[in-house]
Amino acid sequence: MAKEFSAVELIVAKREKQELSTEQINWLVNNYTSGVVADEQMSAMAMAILLNGMNRREIKDLTLAMIATGERLDFSDLTMPTADKHSTGGVGDKITLMLAPLVAVFGVAVPQLSGRGLGHTGGTLDKLEAIPGWQAALSNQQMHDQLARVGAVICAAGTGLAPADKKLYALRDVTGTVEAIPLIASSIMSKKIAEGTSALVLDVKVGSGAFMKNLDRARELAQVLTQLGADAGVKTSALLTDMSTPLGKKIGNALEVEEAVEVLAGGGSQDLIDITVELATEMLRLVGQSDVDVAAALNDGRAMDKWSEMIRAQQGDPLAPMQKAKHEHVVVADESGYLNTLDALAVGTASWRLGAGRARKEDPVQFGAGIILHHKRGEQVTKGQPLLTLFTDEAERFERALDALAGGVKIEANPSTEPTPLILDRINA
Amino acid sequence: MAKEFSAVELIVAKREKQELSTEQINWLVNNYTSGVVADEQMSAMAMAILLNGMNRREIKDLTLAMIATGERLDFSDLTMPTADKHSTGGVGDKITLMLAPLVAVFGVAVPQLSGRGLGHTGGTLDKLEAIPGWQAALSNQQMHDQLARVGAVICAAGTGLAPADKKLYALRDVTGTVEAIPLIASSIMSKKIAEGTSALVLDVKVGSGAFMKNLDRARELAQVLTQLGADAGVKTSALLTDMSTPLGKKIGNALEVEEAVEVLAGGGSQDLIDITVELATEMLRLVGQSDVDVAAALNDGRAMDKWSEMIRAQQGDPLAPMQKAKHEHVVVADESGYLNTLDALAVGTASWRLGAGRARKEDPVQFGAGIILHHKRGEQVTKGQPLLTLFTDEAERFERALDALAGGVKIEANPSTEPTPLILDRINA
Repeated sequence: MAKEFSAVELIVAKREKQELSTEQINWLVNNYTSGVVADEQMSAMAMAILLNGMNRREIKDLTLAMIATGERLDFSDLTMPTADKHSTGGVGDKITLMLAPLVAVFGVAVPQLSGRGLGHTGGTLDKLEAIPGWQAALSNQQMHDQLARVGAVICAAGTGLAPADKKLYALRDVTGTVEAIPLIASSIMSKKIAEGTSALVLDVKVGSGAFMKNLDRARELAQVLTQLGADAGVKTSALLTDMSTPLGKKIGNALEVEEAVEVLAGGGSQDLIDITVELATEMLRLVGQSDVDVAAALNDGRAMDKWSEMIRAQQGDPLAPMQKAKHEHVVVADESGYLNTLDALAVGTASWRLGAGRARKEDPVQFGAGIILHHKRGEQVTKGQPLLTLFTDEAERFERALDALAGGVKIEANPSTEPTPLILDRINA
Repeated sequence: MAKEFSAVELIVAKREKQELSTEQINWLVNNYTSGVVADEQMSAMAMAILLNGMNRREIKDLTLAMIATGERLDFSDLTMPTADKHSTGGVGDKITLMLAPLVAVFGVAVPQLSGRGLGHTGGTLDKLEAIPGWQAALSNQQMHDQLARVGAVICAAGTGLAPADKKLYALRDVTGTVEAIPLIASSIMSKKIAEGTSALVLDVKVGSGAFMKNLDRARELAQVLTQLGADAGVKTSALLTDMSTPLGKKIGNALEVEEAVEVLAGGGSQDLIDITVELATEMLRLVGQSDVDVAAALNDGRAMDKWSEMIRAQQGDPLAPMQKAKHEHVVVADESGYLNTLDALAVGTASWRLGAGRARKEDPVQFGAGIILHHKRGEQVTKGQPLLTLFTDEAERFERALDALAGGVKIEANPSTEPTPLILDRINA
């Protein structure tokens, strides 16, 4: 029989900067999941963890304990290796849409469990649901079969994986404890490890539009995540990528699917192509395919074919027209010069307010709402030229969206002397 | 209308070591009391306060906000000044019983609102309830009238004073956040300030049997408490007193009343007399009576007369015999030497296990249970002499009580070279 502890004793230990044992962490997670440890006790513990930290062993134990509260998927009987990607979330980040089919082209299975968006960054499922007919929910067996047959699946994470994480995440959200690195890391990795992937590339976003605003904190998170992957037997590496300005030129659910299809057709914005190729190359490297021409598979239509196959496998029609917003509003340059500021948070918040995102979990999203950027950051613009077009089904939303853009879009006489690279760092465990 | 905040915003501010404004603290306390701020949010805040602290202004605002959630008593129409004492709690600490009537002898009203005990330190009300007929519950009007007529009242704090404190105290107890000095200080002082005393002396206990085990932490608490009193317009000072060994020679409800009566009769243990006189002298000094012979009032029976009057005013019979325990067990010295260790926590825990205290709020106490010490710490003893006698109504309790004493009672060949003074420090705001 497992040893018994008391919640207060464990909270006090962490409060006093002590290390919690494997047994203590298992007891805590199991008893929190079953309700023996109350929410008010877990929130005090979360704050103590946020302020006093956890070491590598504690974070691993926490993650494994959360995984053990639910089911684990197993794709080890597939004839191909598995690889996945996780992004910490950014504005215009539709990379998963191109990446899953692109990697699958090379005979690597991509089991991508995704979520819906909350706040200014969109969710992958919300984007794909803009495609007529497409179904997010798959059983574990359906997911397994689609992986074997198509090689790529993007679907909703079931309720069976790491239920402790779901409960703790909801609690952190209302108790000011979201930002604890040990809790962020165990939340991300418990689901990815339970999902059964053998390799994982993390896209840790840095900048105004990201969860991590600052490079040092992002690097710290990336290090914790890659160590945790290694400790759990998943080949893991991380890219730190810029999120001070939106990715690509389209933000919003249907708009982002449209832009993903442009990239899959061999076109699209260069930043999208660059990050997609970088991440695909890294995922393939982790499963032992180091000398493949990833960019070629985007240009010659192989990734597009895989995309169509993947969408059709989930009842989607890749050729059907998607919803358009009822209203649009064009913002023009009020002077000539260089678009030195095009802030990710400002654009993300504006798109959210237009109806592309939700304020509460139960809210619907507008598939057609969002923003098209006519220029990327740093480009030269002429007075009167369109800078952005805003889309929404409810015209009264324009005003607050424009408020969000104020200060986030700036034209200056001279070009900025400090261009931000797209890839800021690479971390391996 | 008061400004609106969100609980998460305030938790994050304190988590990031920011100062909370008066408005923010008022919002927090009011909304926690009304249930808008949830327990799991307040516990995260309590942990952030414990780890990141609060400054003097924040602690004052917190205390005033807690007072404002309930009623305030007002004794300003009494013709005499008011003075009170608060002890942070210790083993054998029956000082209030002698102190209230002693100070009242000098024409100073003592409005002592007390509580019941939980854990190894006894509660003043539990002790007085050992007196046949004595009633703890008084209405505010009855309390006022008894103060005007007798000058001393010891009664139960009603539910009307600082309800926010009651709710927060219960939460802290289960979330590992009891030890936060800003929360301890505001909890103690909100009730004392709401009680309406004009002067207050704090007896901050230090040592194994006290809440504060260490002198530096106790001094820090005493400083915060006295500053808080000054900020709230209550003349406040503090004594830091030793609680490494029990006070007096009797521990347990009826036993402590018995010992208090011995002191009021001009006898009793010297440590009890010393602390009682020190605290009474300080209370009188704070209300402007600096040249009074306090000890004389103990010796000549004036304090005893006041005690009888006070007990009778609450339907108690000061002459009635009190309950005796059904069983007793004598512990004898197993060697000759010096009783260098007689640990307060060990004796307090043993007395608690004998039935003198309660494990849960709803448990009853045994009036006759407890311990008589035949020797004080440091005294010379001879092998075979009685050291302590244990009392309980349930003989099966002796075993676990004796377990609690193991290691807490030690006889050594040579006297200890480090006697601990009774008064360790004095703090004035």
